[in-house]
Amino acid sequence: MRSLKCALLGGAMSLAVFGVAGAEGQPLLGFTPQGSDAERALEARFDSSLSADAMRARLQQMAAEPNHVGSPHDRANAEFELAQFKAWGWDARIEEFSVLYPTPKAESLELLGDAPYKAVLTEPPVPGDVTSTHTDGALPAWVAYGGDGDVTAPLVYVNYGMPDDYKALARMGVDVKGKIVIVRYGAGWRGLKPKLAQEHGAVGCIIYSDPADDGYGPGDPYPKGAWRNENGIQRGSVLDMPVRAGDPLTPDVGATKDAKRIALADASTILKIPTLPISYGQAQHFLAALDGPVAPKGWRGALPLTYHVGPGAKVHMVVQADWSQKPLYDVIAVMKGSERPDEWVVRGNHRDGWVYGAEDPLSGQIALMDEAKSLGALAKTGWRPKRTIVYASWDGEEPGLLGSTEWAEQHAAELQAKAVLYINSDGNGRGFLGAEASYSLRALLDQAAADVKDPETGVSVRDRALAAMSVRAAEAGAGEEEKKRAKEASSGVLPIGDLGSGSDYTPFVQHLGLASINLGFGGEGSSGGVYHSAYDTFEHYDRFGDPGFHYGVALAQTTGRLVLRTADADIDPLRFGNLADTIGGQVEELKTLTRTLRERSAAVDKLLDGRAYGLAADPTLTSAPPEREDVVPEIDFKALDAAAQRLKASASAYDQAAAAAGALKPDRRNQVNALLQGVEQSLTDARGLPGRPWYRHLIYAPGLLTGYGSKTLPGVREALESRRWSEAGEFVGRTAAVLQAASDRLDKATALLKG
Amino acid sequence: MRSLKCALLGGAMSLAVFGVAGAEGQPLLGFTPQGSDAERALEARFDSSLSADAMRARLQQMAAEPNHVGSPHDRANAEFELAQFKAWGWDARIEEFSVLYPTPKAESLELLGDAPYKAVLTEPPVPGDVTSTHTDGALPAWVAYGGDGDVTAPLVYVNYGMPDDYKALARMGVDVKGKIVIVRYGAGWRGLKPKLAQEHGAVGCIIYSDPADDGYGPGDPYPKGAWRNENGIQRGSVLDMPVRAGDPLTPDVGATKDAKRIALADASTILKIPTLPISYGQAQHFLAALDGPVAPKGWRGALPLTYHVGPGAKVHMVVQADWSQKPLYDVIAVMKGSERPDEWVVRGNHRDGWVYGAEDPLSGQIALMDEAKSLGALAKTGWRPKRTIVYASWDGEEPGLLGSTEWAEQHAAELQAKAVLYINSDGNGRGFLGAEASYSLRALLDQAAADVKDPETGVSVRDRALAAMSVRAAEAGAGEEEKKRAKEASSGVLPIGDLGSGSDYTPFVQHLGLASINLGFGGEGSSGGVYHSAYDTFEHYDRFGDPGFHYGVALAQTTGRLVLRTADADIDPLRFGNLADTIGGQVEELKTLTRTLRERSAAVDKLLDGRAYGLAADPTLTSAPPEREDVVPEIDFKALDAAAQRLKASASAYDQAAAAAGALKPDRRNQVNALLQGVEQSLTDARGLPGRPWYRHLIYAPGLLTGYGSKTLPGVREALESRRWSEAGEFVGRTAAVLQAASDRLDKATALLKG
Repeated sequence: MRSLKCALLGGAMSLAVFGVAGAEGQPLLGFTPQGSDAERALEARFDSSLSADAMRARLQQMAAEPNHVGSPHDRANAEFELAQFKAWGWDARIEEFSVLYPTPKAESLELLGDAPYKAVLTEPPVPGDVTSTHTDGALPAWVAYGGDGDVTAPLVYVNYGMPDDYKALARMGVDVKGKIVIVRYGAGWRGLKPKLAQEHGAVGCIIYSDPADDGYGPGDPYPKGAWRNENGIQRGSVLDMPVRAGDPLTPDVGATKDAKRIALADASTILKIPTLPISYGQAQHFLAALDGPVAPKGWRGALPLTYHVGPGAKVHMVVQADWSQKPLYDVIAVMKGSERPDEWVVRGNHRDGWVYGAEDPLSGQIALMDEAKSLGALAKTGWRPKRTIVYASWDGEEPGLLGSTEWAEQHAAELQAKAVLYINSDGNGRGFLGAEASYSLRALLDQAAADVKDPETGVSVRDRALAAMSVRAAEAGAGEEEKKRAKEASSGVLPIGDLGSGSDYTPFVQHLGLASINLGFGGEGSSGGVYHSAYDTFEHYDRFGDPGFHYGVALAQTTGRLVLRTADADIDPLRFGNLADTIGGQVEELKTLTRTLRERSAAVDKLLDGRAYGLAADPTLTSAPPEREDVVPEIDFKALDAAAQRLKASASAYDQAAAAAGALKPDRRNQVNALLQGVEQSLTDARGLPGRPWYRHLIYAPGLLTGYGSKTLPGVREALESRRWSEAGEFVGRTAAVLQAASDRLDKATALLKG
Repeated sequence: MRSLKCALLGGAMSLAVFGVAGAEGQPLLGFTPQGSDAERALEARFDSSLSADAMRARLQQMAAEPNHVGSPHDRANAEFELAQFKAWGWDARIEEFSVLYPTPKAESLELLGDAPYKAVLTEPPVPGDVTSTHTDGALPAWVAYGGDGDVTAPLVYVNYGMPDDYKALARMGVDVKGKIVIVRYGAGWRGLKPKLAQEHGAVGCIIYSDPADDGYGPGDPYPKGAWRNENGIQRGSVLDMPVRAGDPLTPDVGATKDAKRIALADASTILKIPTLPISYGQAQHFLAALDGPVAPKGWRGALPLTYHVGPGAKVHMVVQADWSQKPLYDVIAVMKGSERPDEWVVRGNHRDGWVYGAEDPLSGQIALMDEAKSLGALAKTGWRPKRTIVYASWDGEEPGLLGSTEWAEQHAAELQAKAVLYINSDGNGRGFLGAEASYSLRALLDQAAADVKDPETGVSVRDRALAAMSVRAAEAGAGEEEKKRAKEASSGVLPIGDLGSGSDYTPFVQHLGLASINLGFGGEGSSGGVYHSAYDTFEHYDRFGDPGFHYGVALAQTTGRLVLRTADADIDPLRFGNLADTIGGQVEELKTLTRTLRERSAAVDKLLDGRAYGLAADPTLTSAPPEREDVVPEIDFKALDAAAQRLKASASAYDQAAAAAGALKPDRRNQVNALLQGVEQSLTDARGLPGRPWYRHLIYAPGLLTGYGSKTLPGVREALESRRWSEAGEFVGRTAAVLQAASDRLDKATALLKG
């Protein structure tokens, strides 16, 4: 669902790039030196079965027809995968769920007034792209889980439709109450756009792709180039996923046929207002009909017109969905562990697309399948993993992480007892390795990435990623995020991003508390230019995504190493120094944030006292001052400081003990592993986050007001950002408590390693 | 020529806005308390003769026909002004010069190749704008002092055509040698665009206005709104003014009829390559014909196409000028001082436009005329200024500050002996007072601005400007410049900008070393949308520039106070604390710059050592690493530190003594005034700046590579930026020496005040 390209990292320089030895050749985490050598030999055999050609052929087949939830080709792909897994020697099955998945029954969008215009809501085939002619059964312009409605109202342009945009609108004297908003994609997750519009009183929402962000701005449109053309529509989900992912009718439980369901009217994650996505070719007609204030500088896109805010001419909009249940087919393949079958390594990628889904998600799915093929080939030679490996092809990720969430909810207890980690991928592409992960997995990823060769440069994918981070941080205009990565990279370990949401890891990490990693390649070429459109085809991916499928192989090699090393390690390959350092830095960020909020409020209030906003305003325009803000009180961070401090000591002690540990007796080893497996879960709070108890992790969550983007230490941070001061104080305590619990576990594990 | 709107200030909060007493009612600088009261009463009488209606009528008459250098209407306007000045009682005359001023003989621009296109190089009349139909004698698309040429070559897009753009081009593997470049307006002075193109080997230069910067991006195009429409062309000068302003054939001397002239071939400030400005409606045809790399993000404008860098289809371009001499008519009006006729207050604004020139320059000229009218009315009641007042209506500013420069060169010795200050305005508009000035004039401006009421809000124009600065610094996305102003404003005195170039103050301050100020109102509405086009008409200005002409009155009130107070003060109204503080800050900036350059070079070299650029690059694109930079040596700033330190002490001592001084005996007063009059000149070095000896001021200069934008402490700063390390060291010494000379003068003046 989410393109990892967006998440690619800034940062600094690897020592390895300067000729100092990197991780390559070092003993593997959790292995003895001899065990490491054997494991690396095994990995070479694993690699030898991977095949770019096989991936390409698989993509061509699986992306040949529309394959969204409920489509015949989605089911055919599931059956195909099941047969393949079985043929490769896996114990495979399809787990079926039944979910509420709305599909279009009726939709229309018309501009009324002097120059009426009826919008085109489908994507015509593109010359030279055969797949794009297979339009039978393809979804038209559609977002899942918006409201039904037939509304007529004046139009208002709200930029990206994020909270600050509504503040700016209010200062311009424009109210969206009773209006239909038109909003551009970007700057926050799609679903927040209609949600915030609805909260501000809008009665309908049109989302379009502006060519400045996603169209002829960044490059030549398809088919000349890779980028979104004037007909390209970005479909997607607007389910209120920052509150809860999964089937809206079966919160917290698997959506099996007989699961207890709530009524549709009680489904709180379904939005109320009708919402439609349109292309920029269509949006131009609507934006040109706006009047009122000229849009501020940051609100202007690349259409050849003056962006006005409105209100403008009236718009008539109809959306009616078929709200029936649809089937989900998760393909689950298991390879039982030889020594510790009750410790699981779980690996997944979704299979459903919005139309043909070549890049998203099948470019990741074909790599996952090649991994399974190769693991099967190893097994056929007599090798067995020590731990159990579970491969999953998720259905229904696009509408709301449905397949993964229902499966995770259905098997929650077993997963929390057994899963060592969850490894996710989604769309893949040419370029640089990028990952978001539980901080305890950063060292594991670093080691794996050091052992995989980048197809284009011949250095390791780790060193190439570090080089890219370092160059980006050094180029003119590098941002804060790049500089932060640079600082993280100074430890010599490949930086990772924070886990937000946007793909199937969310139920595992944020609901169940399982250590998780999401990874992929990208940042070169431009397969993202057809994101969630009917032009995300095999032809497009073959030309622009990963010509030659070499990065499909690189993804399988990297992910395969993560799977194999976790499956075969004596001690779970987790390290905690990065975790403690990162969280320590986040605690400092919270203090800075509090200070910044306090200073800003004081500055704004001083300006308000001095009438400065009134004096600075052009009296011929409506320009209201910002609202006066309450005084930011002192927040007591002592508990969090102490807990972060202790975690640093505990993590450091564990990492040192783990590095020094010899072979352990099985009993003791099992005790250590049991403790480690629970560290990530100890970072969750069963009461969850405010207003969204399904999200239990107190270190990372998707932002309630950003959607994809991660909020770290979310209980405290979002309370501060929303100026709920007592809640912030409460979550300082709760967050400190989970850090203390993690330290408790680490101290016990350290004692066992040393004892 | 230059729109002051661009120079408007960021900054912080006035105490006055918070209810603390401002400068209003305080004794005036250089006056006794009683003298202050009398002066303020005089100013009230001055104000009573100002008339918005008169200004409007004057603008309608003077902007009725094309009035560029050599046009009949420019001469008619000069004659009209002469008659007016005389009628108002001034001793007025026209001073005539004869200058090289190229006008178009032939010009054409064609795209060749598959889709040939011949560009339209004129601006058609606009419905509802009668003036725009008066096209007889109007200049077509034209920049003055480009080269003649008939060239055919492939086209390359070079963004704003600034030095960093050429570095980026080189890294993309694109060379402009032998090519015609197309460059957009913005980010640096117009004339640098063909100059840098020519230095990089280009054979022709097309400059266009991109709608993102100047067109439908910022607002609705004319006539619906105020902004540049698809036919709007920005004319202008491309004379190499950062090297020397004025007639290219008479360097350093007035271009009188009989002046000694150099040969055209020896005129070093005339460029070599043909250059034409075009509208965005025309540019779109040319940009669409480009291929090659996609332009980087910061290079993309708002035309509905993918911006490519090229090279693209061939372009055929012809420019042929009539290189004959043309007459300049400076109107000079003198009101002799009653007590000290040999101390002059000089006030000027240019009169020539590119076409009708309503906003630029006549909106400032009509205010200057009303000041002269009002001063004349005062004189008719028996009042005489103590010092001599000189009013000037400059011709030929647009092509190269010709009228002011030739006059300043012609009268150099007298001006250096007599002028206390030079007060400049240019285009004016609705909104906020903005000024660039010699730092010694900041306190004078602050006091004057505190006594003028803003037409829209009723507070002083000073308090309104401070409020706008404070709000801009507090709004999201405020830049470094805004924050710097905020810091400057913390002194409680209205911040001013640094003097660069772009209007007639340049010969006075930067060549002769006379304290100068350039001021105007702007920042609201959008009269700048027709800058240097045929749509800068009376109709446009009346609708969008300053409806009601209230800011014309405010400009006359502000400038009138500067004139009157300087003319009547006992002691020259200069203060030096701000000068010393500002220069002290600039010395610190130079040290920071040196450190930053050193760190950046080290960082880049480290990345080059580690092959990072190669690894970070997409191998399917050309992407070369930056060039390796030399090591930045230690620069010894001790002499400058010491001089800046001493200047602070001397300035502080002078300001205190001046504030405490009672009435002085005439002799002593004259000695003090003579010392003060020379302080600004003591900041110059007769040897001038490297490569441009005409520019003698060592505190501010137009940037050799920015054009309009000021470089402070330019000898050192530009040497550092251009990595000429020994030159930087040399100018540390020279700059320290001028600061010491200024301190010497101040110390003598202080001793006289105290003694």
